[in-house]
Amino acid sequence: MALVFKKENGVEFLNDHTVRQRLLAGAAELFARKGYASTTVREIVEAAKVTKPALYYYFRNKEGIYLELMREAQSRFEILLDSARKEIGAVKKRILSFSEQVFQLFLDQIEIARLGISVHYGPAQGAPFFDFDSFHLKFQDLIKQLIREGIRKGEFRNGNIMDMTWAVLGVINVAIEVQLWHPEKSIGRKGLVRILNLVFEGISSSTRHTPSGV
Amino acid sequence: MALVFKKENGVEFLNDHTVRQRLLAGAAELFARKGYASTTVREIVEAAKVTKPALYYYFRNKEGIYLELMREAQSRFEILLDSARKEIGAVKKRILSFSEQVFQLFLDQIEIARLGISVHYGPAQGAPFFDFDSFHLKFQDLIKQLIREGIRKGEFRNGNIMDMTWAVLGVINVAIEVQLWHPEKSIGRKGLVRILNLVFEGISSSTRHTPSGV
Repeated sequence: MALVFKKENGVEFLNDHTVRQRLLAGAAELFARKGYASTTVREIVEAAKVTKPALYYYFRNKEGIYLELMREAQSRFEILLDSARKEIGAVKKRILSFSEQVFQLFLDQIEIARLGISVHYGPAQGAPFFDFDSFHLKFQDLIKQLIREGIRKGEFRNGNIMDMTWAVLGVINVAIEVQLWHPEKSIGRKGLVRILNLVFEGISSSTRHTPSGV
Repeated sequence: MALVFKKENGVEFLNDHTVRQRLLAGAAELFARKGYASTTVREIVEAAKVTKPALYYYFRNKEGIYLELMREAQSRFEILLDSARKEIGAVKKRILSFSEQVFQLFLDQIEIARLGISVHYGPAQGAPFFDFDSFHLKFQDLIKQLIREGIRKGEFRNGNIMDMTWAVLGVINVAIEVQLWHPEKSIGRKGLVRILNLVFEGISSSTRHTPSGV
């Protein structure tokens, strides 16, 4: 079938990777701007400057392209998670580094993040099921594990692990949300690190307080 | 017009307050569950167990009932803001008290919060304009002012006021979002206070660390 296709759409299919990427990019932009429900296959192929059969070939339908966008974002996140789990060394440094990487991944895919959020948290739009909760759970679990390790190693004082986890997640969350909805106030990666350091001072085992950078 | 109305719908209009409240409650529940766009006037009046003219009389149309829901929520929030601005005494205590009140207000009106969020952050649904940003700005301004005062009074150490503001807002935000989307993990009012206290330790002028309650 792919071969027949290539005959019919010779030019487009010379570079499969590009056509596929253009479709994904076009769909991400349209879904994010118009919402999943209001976006049509015709609009996606027009934005990607390809024909409808190209979309059917790579993704079967609108659901398929949406799921592929979500899966690709999730697999990038899983790679970050895996590498963070393998890191060793000071826990604070590892939380900072993981947070910065997640924030950067989010910046790189802000439209897909916006889409996922609007489908997951907005009114039903008929998008196929995608397990967003596992994203939150894995994120939360990693931070919780790191904090537990930090307490064990004496970097953090003994305390309520979940409270500490929420304090850290709250900072990452607010940095992401400001970027999504009020980009003019962007906290940015550097701000994220500074604010996490404020929280670390609150949960630290040492009683040292140094003024954070102004 | 109201009088003519009462003749036509005598029973319903015996208690104006109840009819109006039933319409608001019915609309809030439907909007939150189905989304603004998919909810019809017919569904709202059926949920409220009143007739269409009752809705037209009190709110003119679907836009009117939506705007009234938002305005009522905003005015309750403004009352909290006004009273928080007038409070005197220790800044930490005032931030805790204001945060608890905002969290409680949010719990009391969780459907309206859900609706506002889905209209503001989700795909366009054709809902009339409502100035949600002023809510965020006023909230943020108050916390910023309180932190500035806390630094001046020596409760907080000298530091980046915006960073400290974001750390505090991050906690309130995460408590609200967990309640909205993962109520089974509820942080609750008590958790909110504990986590804010962790942040206060991070930004405090004193170097005292006491373990938070587990």
